[in-house]
Amino acid sequence: MTTPLRLGIAGLGTVGVGVVKIIRQKANLLAARTGRPIVITAVSARSRDKDRGVNLADYAWEDDPVDLAKRDDIDVFVELMGGHEGPAKDATEAAIAAGKDVITANKALLAIHGQALAEAAEAKGCVIRFEAAVAGGIPVVKSLTEGLAGNDITRVMGVMNGTCNYILTRMQDAGLPYDEVFAEADALGYLEADPNLDVGGIDAGHKLSLLSSIAFGTKVAFDGVELEGIQRISIEDINQAADLGYRIKLLGVAQLTGRGLEQRMTPCLVPADSPLGQLTGGTNMVVLEGDAVEQIVLRGPGAGEGPTASAVMGDVCDVARGLRISTFGVPVGALESTQPAQSNSPAPFYLRMALLDRPGALAKVATVLGEFGISIDRMRQGQHDGSEAPVLIVTHKTQRSALNEAIAAMSSTGVLASDPVALRIENV
Amino acid sequence: MTTPLRLGIAGLGTVGVGVVKIIRQKANLLAARTGRPIVITAVSARSRDKDRGVNLADYAWEDDPVDLAKRDDIDVFVELMGGHEGPAKDATEAAIAAGKDVITANKALLAIHGQALAEAAEAKGCVIRFEAAVAGGIPVVKSLTEGLAGNDITRVMGVMNGTCNYILTRMQDAGLPYDEVFAEADALGYLEADPNLDVGGIDAGHKLSLLSSIAFGTKVAFDGVELEGIQRISIEDINQAADLGYRIKLLGVAQLTGRGLEQRMTPCLVPADSPLGQLTGGTNMVVLEGDAVEQIVLRGPGAGEGPTASAVMGDVCDVARGLRISTFGVPVGALESTQPAQSNSPAPFYLRMALLDRPGALAKVATVLGEFGISIDRMRQGQHDGSEAPVLIVTHKTQRSALNEAIAAMSSTGVLASDPVALRIENV
Repeated sequence: MTTPLRLGIAGLGTVGVGVVKIIRQKANLLAARTGRPIVITAVSARSRDKDRGVNLADYAWEDDPVDLAKRDDIDVFVELMGGHEGPAKDATEAAIAAGKDVITANKALLAIHGQALAEAAEAKGCVIRFEAAVAGGIPVVKSLTEGLAGNDITRVMGVMNGTCNYILTRMQDAGLPYDEVFAEADALGYLEADPNLDVGGIDAGHKLSLLSSIAFGTKVAFDGVELEGIQRISIEDINQAADLGYRIKLLGVAQLTGRGLEQRMTPCLVPADSPLGQLTGGTNMVVLEGDAVEQIVLRGPGAGEGPTASAVMGDVCDVARGLRISTFGVPVGALESTQPAQSNSPAPFYLRMALLDRPGALAKVATVLGEFGISIDRMRQGQHDGSEAPVLIVTHKTQRSALNEAIAAMSSTGVLASDPVALRIENV
Repeated sequence: MTTPLRLGIAGLGTVGVGVVKIIRQKANLLAARTGRPIVITAVSARSRDKDRGVNLADYAWEDDPVDLAKRDDIDVFVELMGGHEGPAKDATEAAIAAGKDVITANKALLAIHGQALAEAAEAKGCVIRFEAAVAGGIPVVKSLTEGLAGNDITRVMGVMNGTCNYILTRMQDAGLPYDEVFAEADALGYLEADPNLDVGGIDAGHKLSLLSSIAFGTKVAFDGVELEGIQRISIEDINQAADLGYRIKLLGVAQLTGRGLEQRMTPCLVPADSPLGQLTGGTNMVVLEGDAVEQIVLRGPGAGEGPTASAVMGDVCDVARGLRISTFGVPVGALESTQPAQSNSPAPFYLRMALLDRPGALAKVATVLGEFGISIDRMRQGQHDGSEAPVLIVTHKTQRSALNEAIAAMSSTGVLASDPVALRIENV
């Protein structure tokens, strides 16, 4: 038996504890699979005294994760704290400076500082692995970086935030308004400390930007992700979409176009009977398209102790087996800079608005759409509710830019009671 | 730039040509991803003169793949010929004896001789990689061996023969009988030279036995796969299943139980609106279940030039990047021997039979089922067609062994016009 692989684990929340449990329970299996013992040398977390239901007595304790990262007796720094600044960043930088490999579940850290960290790691000959940062237990980073390495990747899509998908599914199933389901999710502990990371699409945007980088060999460009959260999705939207045969999903799409790198994470309508439409609860789904492989779809749990720890352990076993891959699939100097490209491929759109009760209001809206070259596939006006009437329009294929201009022009006609909700329809 | 990785490719059919094309078209991309040039040194196929639409002039030619396998100027022998005896076996053995790594798409070879080949490879320090042997473009071997390496795998399931799925889907969509669709598939070139490999479930059984070995750390046990082909599935079965809300799929299931290793590849009824039920045409789907990850579902094209070449290239890039993993995930000496266990977990069954036109025939059948403790969920008798009447029974959960005994007992009552078709209902 060769040299053990020695881990220092920073962060003993749900995922950290899950990793400790697996390493304690499966020592023989892991050694058989990787050819060497995998051991924990030291751990670090905020509170030493908290009972985490797992025996930590065998491991050295560090109050400061930076001290953990620098220890001579660890080979791999496992960062499970989260947050893109502060201790997670400091300790990761310290680990790399000390020549340690890094395994992390931290999508925010890599989305913001991935380029600098990858440069530092490459200079030191370290690897950074982050399977657990994207889509929980689904081995999507591995599939993209390794399994599909013979492909020019043409598109990456996916539902990558389980909390948003839980909220949208629950609204549909229980017929409950957004605010009520949001409160439920909060009570269940499904939301990040800053809920906007989830419902604002930021967390999912972080993940998409990491997949884009690997897929297209481009620098991580989280700033270029067109982000729209689910906060404005009402139960009315859910129900109207269902009537039309659709479900609303927070869907990420990334593709490299002649105009630049298109990345969007926005609520979309997808067919109710499609694999994406059938995705319920916290489950994630990623669609990978390449010139050779055509299309691969991966589905699995997007979060939780077991699934996320499984992803971390996949990375641990890779490092133990000696796999050394550049952070984003190619040497950091080969990653290309890109311009962000607004998603402008034509698509049908769902448009919900409230019209003021004025003669000719509906005609004005229809006229404006026509002026911007947008033709109407379906239109429904509901009963007036006080001084407002709900109107639902499904357009034929149009560009988002034309739709935005049309919405601005509608607003200036003075017939809208509020800003319309406009959602792209993706017939995937 | 470090030393090139030099390939010798044996077999220039669809997949071989696909691999050559990728290596010619993507030299820079592959070198950036793996850190070294990937080059073809020599090739071998049956006919040197055939126009394959790709320029082979840069490569040495060998008439005999064994000679190719032994060449001093190749590092990796890429076996894309097929067949579990003859040239494919001889050349693979020769390559390993000469210390070459092996990449193969040959499920039959590994299902029959995998243990011996893995032993030889391990003794020589070579690796054998076979992503393309299972489920075409889906990176399932990688996901299982590497991504889920921190899991005890509890179950593997899947639809892994695109030809069978094409036939079953086409019967349903076009309302055509088996024989007619079989002839169509043959004309389209979808069938193996020996069609029984496809429609008899053998090819899919080979694949399942390879996944079982990786999943459970057991010796490849193709002999232990309970095999049933799709040849007896009639359009009547397809339609009856559809009426009940199901689709018929050739479904593989493997799990390690206290009684031994259960592996079956049999036609089953799955819910029409489930991901497996919605799988159409040549698409494959594999479901991987582990104690930590819960459940991962992978879907993608099961065959074809691009997808299969993509899988081969994933292995090529792994070898170029220096990944060295035991053939079946653990050292060959650690693979456990298992007893085959008949699948005996209770399930509802679909039972179609033709009764002779005799008084009390239906009562006799029902009585026999009751005698074996099998209760009936639904039963339909159709109109007599000449001297026979079609009868469809859906049982409550029962064991396959009890059902087999009941069927034998029914036969001895003399009321059956032919052997019943009994299909397990998997509510997955």
